[in-house]
Amino acid sequence: MSLIVVMNCNTSAAMTSRMGIQAQSHARPGTQILALNPTWGPDSAEGYYDSFITAAAVLDRLHSVPAETAAVVMAGFGEHGREGAREMLDVPVVDVTEAAATFALFLGPQFGVVTTLSRARAQIRDSLRVAGLWERCASVEAADVGVLELELEPDAAFDSMCAAGQRAVDRGAEVLVLGCAGMTGLDAALSDKLGVPVVDSVTAAVAQAESLIALGLNTSRSLSYAHPRTKRRDGWPITSQENHS
Amino acid sequence: MSLIVVMNCNTSAAMTSRMGIQAQSHARPGTQILALNPTWGPDSAEGYYDSFITAAAVLDRLHSVPAETAAVVMAGFGEHGREGAREMLDVPVVDVTEAAATFALFLGPQFGVVTTLSRARAQIRDSLRVAGLWERCASVEAADVGVLELELEPDAAFDSMCAAGQRAVDRGAEVLVLGCAGMTGLDAALSDKLGVPVVDSVTAAVAQAESLIALGLNTSRSLSYAHPRTKRRDGWPITSQENHS
Amino acid sequence: MSLIVVMNCNTSAAMTSRMGIQAQSHARPGTQILALNPTWGPDSAEGYYDSFITAAAVLDRLHSVPAETAAVVMAGFGEHGREGAREMLDVPVVDVTEAAATFALFLGPQFGVVTTLSRARAQIRDSLRVAGLWERCASVEAADVGVLELELEPDAAFDSMCAAGQRAVDRGAEVLVLGCAGMTGLDAALSDKLGVPVVDSVTAAVAQAESLIALGLNTSRSLSYAHPRTKRRDGWPITSQENHS
Amino acid sequence: MSLIVVMNCNTSAAMTSRMGIQAQSHARPGTQILALNPTWGPDSAEGYYDSFITAAAVLDRLHSVPAETAAVVMAGFGEHGREGAREMLDVPVVDVTEAAATFALFLGPQFGVVTTLSRARAQIRDSLRVAGLWERCASVEAADVGVLELELEPDAAFDSMCAAGQRAVDRGAEVLVLGCAGMTGLDAALSDKLGVPVVDSVTAAVAQAESLIALGLNTSRSLSYAHPRTKRRDGWPITSQENHS
Amino acid sequence: MSLIVVMNCNTSAAMTSRMGIQAQSHARPGTQILALNPTWGPDSAEGYYDSFITAAAVLDRLHSVPAETAAVVMAGFGEHGREGAREMLDVPVVDVTEAAATFALFLGPQFGVVTTLSRARAQIRDSLRVAGLWERCASVEAADVGVLELELEPDAAFDSMCAAGQRAVDRGAEVLVLGCAGMTGLDAALSDKLGVPVVDSVTAAVAQAESLIALGLNTSRSLSYAHPRTKRRDGWPITSQENHS
Amino acid sequence: MSLIVVMNCNTSAAMTSRMGIQAQSHARPGTQILALNPTWGPDSAEGYYDSFITAAAVLDRLHSVPAETAAVVMAGFGEHGREGAREMLDVPVVDVTEAAATFALFLGPQFGVVTTLSRARAQIRDSLRVAGLWERCASVEAADVGVLELELEPDAAFDSMCAAGQRAVDRGAEVLVLGCAGMTGLDAALSDKLGVPVVDSVTAAVAQAESLIALGLNTSRSLSYAHPRTKRRDGWPITSQENHS
Repeated sequence: MSLIVVMNCNTSAAMTSRMGIQAQSHARPGTQILALNPTWGPDSAEGYYDSFITAAAVLDRLHSVPAETAAVVMAGFGEHGREGAREMLDVPVVDVTEAAATFALFLGPQFGVVTTLSRARAQIRDSLRVAGLWERCASVEAADVGVLELELEPDAAFDSMCAAGQRAVDRGAEVLVLGCAGMTGLDAALSDKLGVPVVDSVTAAVAQAESLIALGLNTSRSLSYAHPRTKRRDGWPITSQENHS
Repeated sequence: MSLIVVMNCNTSAAMTSRMGIQAQSHARPGTQILALNPTWGPDSAEGYYDSFITAAAVLDRLHSVPAETAAVVMAGFGEHGREGAREMLDVPVVDVTEAAATFALFLGPQFGVVTTLSRARAQIRDSLRVAGLWERCASVEAADVGVLELELEPDAAFDSMCAAGQRAVDRGAEVLVLGCAGMTGLDAALSDKLGVPVVDSVTAAVAQAESLIALGLNTSRSLSYAHPRTKRRDGWPITSQENHS
Repeated sequence: MSLIVVMNCNTSAAMTSRMGIQAQSHARPGTQILALNPTWGPDSAEGYYDSFITAAAVLDRLHSVPAETAAVVMAGFGEHGREGAREMLDVPVVDVTEAAATFALFLGPQFGVVTTLSRARAQIRDSLRVAGLWERCASVEAADVGVLELELEPDAAFDSMCAAGQRAVDRGAEVLVLGCAGMTGLDAALSDKLGVPVVDSVTAAVAQAESLIALGLNTSRSLSYAHPRTKRRDGWPITSQENHS
Repeated sequence: MSLIVVMNCNTSAAMTSRMGIQAQSHARPGTQILALNPTWGPDSAEGYYDSFITAAAVLDRLHSVPAETAAVVMAGFGEHGREGAREMLDVPVVDVTEAAATFALFLGPQFGVVTTLSRARAQIRDSLRVAGLWERCASVEAADVGVLELELEPDAAFDSMCAAGQRAVDRGAEVLVLGCAGMTGLDAALSDKLGVPVVDSVTAAVAQAESLIALGLNTSRSLSYAHPRTKRRDGWPITSQENHS
Repeated sequence: MSLIVVMNCNTSAAMTSRMGIQAQSHARPGTQILALNPTWGPDSAEGYYDSFITAAAVLDRLHSVPAETAAVVMAGFGEHGREGAREMLDVPVVDVTEAAATFALFLGPQFGVVTTLSRARAQIRDSLRVAGLWERCASVEAADVGVLELELEPDAAFDSMCAAGQRAVDRGAEVLVLGCAGMTGLDAALSDKLGVPVVDSVTAAVAQAESLIALGLNTSRSLSYAHPRTKRRDGWPITSQENHS
Repeated sequence: MSLIVVMNCNTSAAMTSRMGIQAQSHARPGTQILALNPTWGPDSAEGYYDSFITAAAVLDRLHSVPAETAAVVMAGFGEHGREGAREMLDVPVVDVTEAAATFALFLGPQFGVVTTLSRARAQIRDSLRVAGLWERCASVEAADVGVLELELEPDAAFDSMCAAGQRAVDRGAEVLVLGCAGMTGLDAALSDKLGVPVVDSVTAAVAQAESLIALGLNTSRSLSYAHPRTKRRDGWPITSQENHS
């Protein structure tokens, strides 16, 4: 039995719960999903300011994951923090942005991203560019729907997502990626509507984490992701200072 | 039970067999591996000429895979043909080059490739560039060992692979990728020697295929990988013309 | 007198003949054109599957070109195989894709490609990217006309090509390239219609081959395009096994 | 009189003080420098983990800058957070990484970065790549000196910096950039030693901030850097919740 | 008191005068602006032919700037010559193209350029690409207004500039740059109209020159911008051969 | 009979003569070479300053080429002016830099450039980058020999060129390009010495010009290379004002 922590980046318990259910339902038999969220920070990450807060809140929360954790999924599409988690944790870390993009590469020559707000498009592009996964992205399109509206007005949100997905297809995408962890579970419906494969970033990331665990692959410690140096970090971690190593 | 065909690109039965054993030993419980090779073509693919022959020989052989095949792994590192197989087959196709590179992305900021012959370096770079996976490749280094020598002189070959891997590390790689499907199984030893994670391209590709099957993701048919048009193809397929659709 | 083989990638004898006539009519006085096609494979190459079949069929056919051949033109736009032919043959090999693009560079800051089917656009982009000639390509536009329809319905096909060419111009192209060897001969009419220079890929490639012959320039043998290694290649070449070196 | 806040990313008061003095001594007559540091977090930022903590700590601290602040300098080379500060603040934000690189562009065709630890090289490359300033960077070289050792063992540190700078020059740099805000003030000595211009990132950023103030240029609010959305952010800001807007 | 020469690239005295007034009005208290233009060449630079003439005419004119000159601003957007001036002069040289682009980087993730004629778009792209500042340029849009018409029909020209700016915004620009030195002074009005920051290239370049002067930064002499070699240059400089070194 | 003007960029009559002889000896039977040089400017172009002077001097000289000129070769490797000549002239313009690089692309996966002075390396890189021909350039290596020393000390110069070429090969070049028009004629000797094909830029450019003439291809007039606008250009052309159109 492998325990995979799905780490939502925002504090919305409802979204965390939904991610956990979705992840568990698509996981391998031997996988146990534990969905968590930070104890502080924004209830949705919409823009750089939120994203840098959630990055720290997520790292803070990751100081107290169960000892038997086998891998961590960073469940915030285009959000910051993945490299920090890789340094900090002894187990593999899979970012949903990277997993969704790499899965899409196997399915078509170019992929598109359907995200929530237009303001997130530059940030997603940055995230893919740093990951070295930008070249085959045809377009990042926004449904212009807030993260929390996905749950409040699901029908209107879905229609907007379809329109955004179609724009990405018109610009060359042959595969789509759900560009918000909160969209998890909408992949099949969007695929039916638009006639192209749609990758759910959360379930893709869990599958990637399972693969890394199965093959015994872990983060390189040779240089950039070596464990953090021991030093004075006043007031850190925020919520669980007793766990501070 | 899912049947995954591991398609060696060359006609070396010994190598095919070794790939099959290695793949099966790292596969999920529910996965059945069937390792195949073409019925004609070179017994090792070393350069563009061989690679284009094997691409056709592999497509030819793929016309007669079992009906219950759930995914196909293209087991020739840096070799041609993957996009053709995607068009032709109804199931997902995972190229070992792409799988190894994407797995490496989760483990360090830059990866290196350890391959056999120097003459293959440009071809591997081409393959990664077309796949959109070149940007984070620090270097492709050759052990200057022929594909078949890997089996004939394993100790000398391994020493040369270590030296090549070290050169890649010196040029910025923090993760290595075994850049020849025939190197399958040498990942752990190389990792122990060099102190960085090493990705075995064949087992990574099988894991990726398992993930795509588990998530129900298949090749996009919307444009570039639509099924081949019906037309006259004289004398094709070569070895199994009765199966020609 | 220099003999240049124009190697059509498909088995359509009519198209081969037309290419030969077109090439001869634009060649230098001292050039003798011999237009050939493979003895097996698809009668038009439309997509990756066809392209990998034709790559092998072309290499197979190239085993029996006349001994006095001075250069070979690979006459399939965006098709595979060029690097393999470079390894195999003792004479220069000019791919029509590369020749058309390089000629276009001298005529305007950005060029566009007018091709047949939309499904070929990604493949053409791949071919140009691998060739290092993608950066100044403004767009690849498809007339949505099958390769063989070019001959069957020439007027409708030409109108569609004009529309595609205009789209490329609207996206920044100041020069166009005929993105299908089967379009050979339509350059002047398209140029008249759209007011920009149009490069015929077949005649450009022949001119480039003539230049390489005249200057005594031949493929580098120092590494990637060294002659193929001697080895067992069962059942290869397909049609002329007696010529197998 | 314009007040520019120089925001050190770590909690080292000594380094903050030194930055402030250096910045004030090179500022225009009408500029008042206020050097600040976060109230929590690591006393040096060395790697991604530290960097994501400092990004949040810096944003937290920026909630209580003086109302008359005219611009903010983010004084952590290669560190995270700049785009978040741009969203949050009403005044221009200048990152020392971006300022140093843009100043270097005016002085030579390629620049090099001299930083502290090798583990920071990938992070700096990421930062420059996201900023669109990577292309003319010849190399990022590390002195292999910890941030705080710069002060403890200045002579040895300086020698290591010279060696790193020389390596960058050998790789094509014609200008150098001090790749750690803690190196501020060492530019003249390094330039004398190596014979190339050396840009101090802190004083360059202050000068850039002065320019933006003088020209009345401020962050675009049209999309990506629009002010953060009003929402629930539990427990945030950390140290000054009464200032929470 | 620092003397900064603002070097218009064309011979239009009216434009030179306007640039000088605009530059002086935005300069620091201690800066003295001297606006100059070449003594020969086109009265507006519109295309490559004009640009190469003006490059030489500007270098020619720069042979007789006052000895106390502290920096030179090359005031021709997208025009040639900047690297030559860097070699030739003992003081820093700031190109308005580079200054405008670097200033824009601090204000939004992507910028757009509003220029005069469509024919200049490729040249501006070239200039930014060589400068390493192309990656974050969303679009170069032309108002289709001649350089001298800016003064003759200011209202119509401004309307066309607004339309061009809006197209750049629609393509992702969040900041605009005035892509013609003759547009100097129109930044505020365009910004008011379109709701995004607008960078005036001439005043940005003067501010950048002031910064380089203040920090004592000068052109690297280590290699590419070393002073010109002493040699025979017949008939050069054109207008002031007595100054020929 | 086609007249091709080979336009040396410097005023060295000896070099011009040598280029003319070399070009004529490799030209087609029907080609008449006329080698010209500017009437003013440096006797060798070594750096940006010289290059911008020669660009104008070349354009000036091109105002009085014979009316029957069929094409112009710009014979200065990495030098400026080619796009201006394209605007100005009614006939095709071939830059030796572009011709050498495109010829090299047909011969190996990566090429290297052997040039004279190290100071020219950045300028050559710029020229190839603008031309869209940089991606497959492995290295630009300098022999550290002045342009005129090529003729004065041919043996020492050749030895230095061999060493530079070997460095390029060590960095991945499989083909070399002579990166100075003054090196014309040394290709065969260098190729014999290093075992890789070597492209002479002048003869390649003449061959390219012949191809463009033969195919009736000419510069696009649709936008960027439209003929220069009619306008006041005081004092221009310099040496032949009576020819001013």
